[in-house]
Amino acid sequence: MMNELARLKPALAQRMAAFLARAGAESDFVSEWAKDLFPRLLDYSTRGKMIRGALVGLGASVFSGRPFGGDSEQDRHCLDIGVAMELIQSLLLIHDDIMDQDDMRRGKPSVHAQYVHLARGRQALDPARLGESMGICAGDVSGFLAFELLSGLAAPPETIRRLLVLTSRELTYVGLAQMGDVHNGAVAAEVGLADIVRLYRYKTGRYTFSLPLMAGAIVAGAGQAELDALAELGELYGVIFQIKDDDLGLFGNSERTGKPVGSDIREGKKTLHRHYLLERCDVAERQSLRAVFGSRSAGDAELRLVLRRMEQTGVREQIDAELDAYAAQARRLIDGLSGADAEGRAKLHQLLAYNLEREA
Amino acid sequence: MMNELARLKPALAQRMAAFLARAGAESDFVSEWAKDLFPRLLDYSTRGKMIRGALVGLGASVFSGRPFGGDSEQDRHCLDIGVAMELIQSLLLIHDDIMDQDDMRRGKPSVHAQYVHLARGRQALDPARLGESMGICAGDVSGFLAFELLSGLAAPPETIRRLLVLTSRELTYVGLAQMGDVHNGAVAAEVGLADIVRLYRYKTGRYTFSLPLMAGAIVAGAGQAELDALAELGELYGVIFQIKDDDLGLFGNSERTGKPVGSDIREGKKTLHRHYLLERCDVAERQSLRAVFGSRSAGDAELRLVLRRMEQTGVREQIDAELDAYAAQARRLIDGLSGADAEGRAKLHQLLAYNLEREA
Repeated sequence: MMNELARLKPALAQRMAAFLARAGAESDFVSEWAKDLFPRLLDYSTRGKMIRGALVGLGASVFSGRPFGGDSEQDRHCLDIGVAMELIQSLLLIHDDIMDQDDMRRGKPSVHAQYVHLARGRQALDPARLGESMGICAGDVSGFLAFELLSGLAAPPETIRRLLVLTSRELTYVGLAQMGDVHNGAVAAEVGLADIVRLYRYKTGRYTFSLPLMAGAIVAGAGQAELDALAELGELYGVIFQIKDDDLGLFGNSERTGKPVGSDIREGKKTLHRHYLLERCDVAERQSLRAVFGSRSAGDAELRLVLRRMEQTGVREQIDAELDAYAAQARRLIDGLSGADAEGRAKLHQLLAYNLEREA
Repeated sequence: MMNELARLKPALAQRMAAFLARAGAESDFVSEWAKDLFPRLLDYSTRGKMIRGALVGLGASVFSGRPFGGDSEQDRHCLDIGVAMELIQSLLLIHDDIMDQDDMRRGKPSVHAQYVHLARGRQALDPARLGESMGICAGDVSGFLAFELLSGLAAPPETIRRLLVLTSRELTYVGLAQMGDVHNGAVAAEVGLADIVRLYRYKTGRYTFSLPLMAGAIVAGAGQAELDALAELGELYGVIFQIKDDDLGLFGNSERTGKPVGSDIREGKKTLHRHYLLERCDVAERQSLRAVFGSRSAGDAELRLVLRRMEQTGVREQIDAELDAYAAQARRLIDGLSGADAEGRAKLHQLLAYNLEREA
C-alpha cells in the first residue's frame, strides 16, 4: 500500500509546481516576494513522501470502487486536493519548525532558517527575528494557497463546500491539539494518559489520516455515516502510527528510521512509553528516570537503562497489547464500512497492516 | 458613513460570540485549549471598530440597492462574512504582533503576550518562546475558523465558492505584501517609491477595503467587471487611508489620534512623507535627517525639525496634491460603476470623503 501511495508523489509534485507557477505569476504585481517564496514552498513541500496528499486518492478509491492514481476526473480532483493537503502540511510544518526552533527539516534548512540566512546577507538588524517573521508569513501564505486551490476545484460547488467545511474544521482541531502539544512540551507538569492519547488521536490521527481519507470520500460522494466511520478509523491509524513511531524511536534501527538513538528520551518527549514506565516505578526510581528524560546530555548507559527498564517492567508488552486492541477496533470499523466494496476494504486493511508492521 | 458602519459592531460582535461558542463546544473533545482560546479570540476581535466586517454590508448594499444592517437574508450573509473578515483580521494582527514584538494592542495585552503571562504562571522553561508559539497557533486557528464560517454560509454553493476563491487569493496578496513590509522594516536599505505605494495599495487597500466590499458585492450578485472596479477602488481608498494615516501621525492631534507625537519618525517607518523629504534634501541634510528617522531617542527638537522641513520643502503640498489625484481617480471609478444606483454610488463617495477628511 505504501508503495502505491508513494507512486503518486511525482504527479502531486508536478501538479503543485504548475499551481504555484500560476499563482506566483498572478501575485507578482503585489510583491517581489512571490518570486522568492513560491519556489521555496515547492521545494519544501516536495521534500517529504507526500503521503497525506496521496491518501486523498485512496479515500476516493475505497468508495468509488475504482483504482486511484490514474487520469479520470476523480483522480484529477484528488490530485488537486492532495496538493492542497500538502500545502497545508507545509503551513503546519513551517510554523512548527519556528515553535520548536528546528533549523533543519528533512536534511535541508527549514523555511524560517532560510530566511534567517537571507536576513544575514542583507545586514538585517536582527536576522533571527526577521527570519522567523518571514517564516510565519510563508506558512500563512501556504495555507491561503491551499484554500484557494480547494475553492477553485473544477468540481460541483456543493462538493467544494463540503471539502472546505471539513478541511477548515479539521484544521481548527489540529491547531488546538498543537497548542496542547507545545504547552505540554514546555512546562514541567506531567501530562496525563488521556491527554497523551488525545494528542495522538487528534494531532496525528485526524490530521494525517482522517482528513485526507475523508476528503477523498467526499469526492466519491460518500455520505455522512461513512465520513464519520472514516474519521474514527483515521484516529485509530494515527494512534497506532504514533505509538509505533515512538517505539521505533526507542527500539528501532536508527539507520533505518533516520532518528538518532534515544533522541526522544533526550528531548523528554511525553510518550506513552515514558508514561507507563514512570507509572510502574517506585518513587526513588521514578525520580532518577525523570532526570534522564529531557536531559540533553544523557549518556548511552542511561539511555540503555531506560530501554531495559521498559522491557523489564512490561511496558513494551503493554504497548503491544494496546496496539493489538487499537488494530482490532480498526479492523471492525473497516469491515463495517458500508459503501466500500471488498477491494476498498482490502486497501484500508493494507494501510492498517503497514502502520502496524513498518520498521522505518 | 463611518457612523453607519460603526453601528454594525454590536451585531457583528454578537454573531461572532454565537459562532465561537458553537465552534468551541464542538472542538472541546480535541483539546482543553478550545475553552481557553475562543473567549480570547472574541475579546481580541471585538476590541476594534470592526469596520472591515461592516464594509461587507456596504458592498452588498451598493449593488442590491437595499440598505444594510437590517435583518434580510442578504444582511445575515453579510454579517457572517463580516465576522469571517474580522477573524481573518485577528489572524493577521495576532501574527503581526508577534513579528513586531508588540505586547499591547488597543490598550490590552496582545494574544501572544497573554500566553507569555500564562506561561510564566506555569513555570515554563522559556515563557517568551512558549507565548509566541501559542500565539502562532492562535492566529492560525482564527484563520481556520474564518474559512469554516465562510464555507458553512447558508448561501448558494456557487456564492460560497466565489467568496472563498476571492478571500483566499486576497489573503495570499496580503501575506506577500506583509513579507515585503517586515523585510523592508528590518533592513537598512532604502525602499523605493514604487514599493512604498505598492504596500499601501496591496497591504492596506486591497485587504482593508477591496476584499470586504467585493465579498459583499458577490452576495448581491455583482459581476466580474464590477468586482474588478471595486478592487481598484479599494486600492485607492487604501492608499488615501494610509497616506492620511501617516500625515495624522506626523501632524495630527495626538490626543485625537491616540498615537504618540513622532512615533512613526522614531520607529523609522518608511512613509511617503519620509521618502519625499529625503529626496528633496542635499546630501549633508539627508544624512543628518536619516539619523533622526529610526532613532528611538530622538528629542522634541529633532522631531520638530523634521516636520518643519516637510513643510518648507513642499512635501506636504506634494502629498496633498497626490491625495487629490487619488481621490479624483476614485471618484471617476465610483461614477462609472455599472450595477450601482445613485444611492449606492453616494455611499461610496461618503466613504471616500471620510478617508480624506478624517482627523483621527
